[in-house]
Amino acid sequence: MNITLSRHSQVRVMESTVANAEKYFGEFCSLLAAYTRKTARLRDKADQLVKQLVDFANTESPELRATLRDFAEDLAQVQDYRQAEVERLEAKVVMPLKLYGAQIKQTRAEIKKFKRVQKNEMKQLEKLEKLRQKCPSDRQAETHVQRASVDASCTTHQLEETVDNFQRQKLKDLQRFFSDFVTIEMVFHAKAVEVYSRAFQTLEHYELEGDLQDFRAKMHGAPGHRQARPLSGASPSPCVSWPPANQDARSTARSHRKGDVESEHSVEQAPPEDLGGQEQGLRP
Amino acid sequence: MNITLSRHSQVRVMESTVANAEKYFGEFCSLLAAYTRKTARLRDKADQLVKQLVDFANTESPELRATLRDFAEDLAQVQDYRQAEVERLEAKVVMPLKLYGAQIKQTRAEIKKFKRVQKNEMKQLEKLEKLRQKCPSDRQAETHVQRASVDASCTTHQLEETVDNFQRQKLKDLQRFFSDFVTIEMVFHAKAVEVYSRAFQTLEHYELEGDLQDFRAKMHGAPGHRQARPLSGASPSPCVSWPPANQDARSTARSHRKGDVESEHSVEQAPPEDLGGQEQGLRP
Repeated sequence: MNITLSRHSQVRVMESTVANAEKYFGEFCSLLAAYTRKTARLRDKADQLVKQLVDFANTESPELRATLRDFAEDLAQVQDYRQAEVERLEAKVVMPLKLYGAQIKQTRAEIKKFKRVQKNEMKQLEKLEKLRQKCPSDRQAETHVQRASVDASCTTHQLEETVDNFQRQKLKDLQRFFSDFVTIEMVFHAKAVEVYSRAFQTLEHYELEGDLQDFRAKMHGAPGHRQARPLSGASPSPCVSWPPANQDARSTARSHRKGDVESEHSVEQAPPEDLGGQEQGLRP
Repeated sequence: MNITLSRHSQVRVMESTVANAEKYFGEFCSLLAAYTRKTARLRDKADQLVKQLVDFANTESPELRATLRDFAEDLAQVQDYRQAEVERLEAKVVMPLKLYGAQIKQTRAEIKKFKRVQKNEMKQLEKLEKLRQKCPSDRQAETHVQRASVDASCTTHQLEETVDNFQRQKLKDLQRFFSDFVTIEMVFHAKAVEVYSRAFQTLEHYELEGDLQDFRAKMHGAPGHRQARPLSGASPSPCVSWPPANQDARSTARSHRKGDVESEHSVEQAPPEDLGGQEQGLRP
């Protein structure tokens, strides 16, 4: 009876180990899937922000337009990295965890099978034991008991091996899943730091005076929404002297504007500001 | 009439500038508020994961338990930084953008007021002009026209100044909002890289053999869910020889367990693995 009790408790430990793994790995899987989805939503919001930034940039004066476009591009790049993060989380963490669920089910089925076999073997062993007790001198009964005992041991051994393999795999997989999770996150965050450092420089380099001049010219100039920009030779002084209010400034501003469309385009094509010092802002 | 037309178009530029700012800053505000909310949801999911990790750790063998707890602590720390990110985004980006909306409304109201004054002044000017044309030699009519013209110029000047200040402030604020956004994001990502590097080391250092030994002891030992751990003197060989299946292993495993509770506690109190090389994994 001791053997039976011991095996019962052993099987109970195995079952609870597998059930526990099933419960928690299931939780990890659904939480990490939700984490991945929420990350995707964050990417979506930032993508919308990028779109609005570009739209807004197109309504603004050249300097700000260039700055906002560069900034939007950086923000978009962070979202590309976030997208890579999402894809990698799905492929290397969520999907393997899902597949792991199938593996757990298989181990459960194996334990169930071994349990059934073991139960039958135990019944058989008890029966043979009783027979032997009835005829203690029966050598054949003795042999039968021994053989049944060896069979039962063998089954138990197989069961133990199955669960041992399961446990080893579980520990390895757990380490792998979370190491992959951490690596994916780490790569994303490191890339984000890099790109945001550049974005910070872009925003820092923005000089608003040119745009203000441009805005003033527009205010005194043509109607509508085209942008003007002072000619490169024009004084960049912020202390612009206001023209007399009753002077019709439209004609001068219009001719002024014509040349500006050219310089505006050249600004658009110009390379972004020097980003050489982009690592500087890494830990502000 | 030229003056009136010019002023009309000038006011139209001003109004469209303010309306444009209202539209896009409103968009930026709601998108950044949504971005902040989504970040908070991501933090919530990760917090749930931390909780499940700790719960799971408590059902596992000592080595894994210690590793998972350390890992959960790191993951929780990233969420603390994310929480700081959320709070700072709210305080330094979303809230100022919201307040900016009020400022835009005020500028709109001022433009409206100036527009009304300007309209009246223009009407007055036209009336006086007509009077002067009727009596071209009337010196008093001439003086009235000049005074009305000066008044109108003054109002236009004030309007221009209001919009100029608005535009300057808008450009400055835009730069500030997005610089603050980038700084907050950058700080968070840099901290996340730092903590995840440590977490990576924690997971890398996990050795499963001790836990496997422990699991085998449990399988052959006491029922229930308490954890065992081989005594420090016990052989850590993974090639454990399976005891004969029909041997009642419970008594030995139980005495074994008793000593283990001690060593288990000492493991719990032990400092986490050497994290000296935590900066190593910064850019994998």
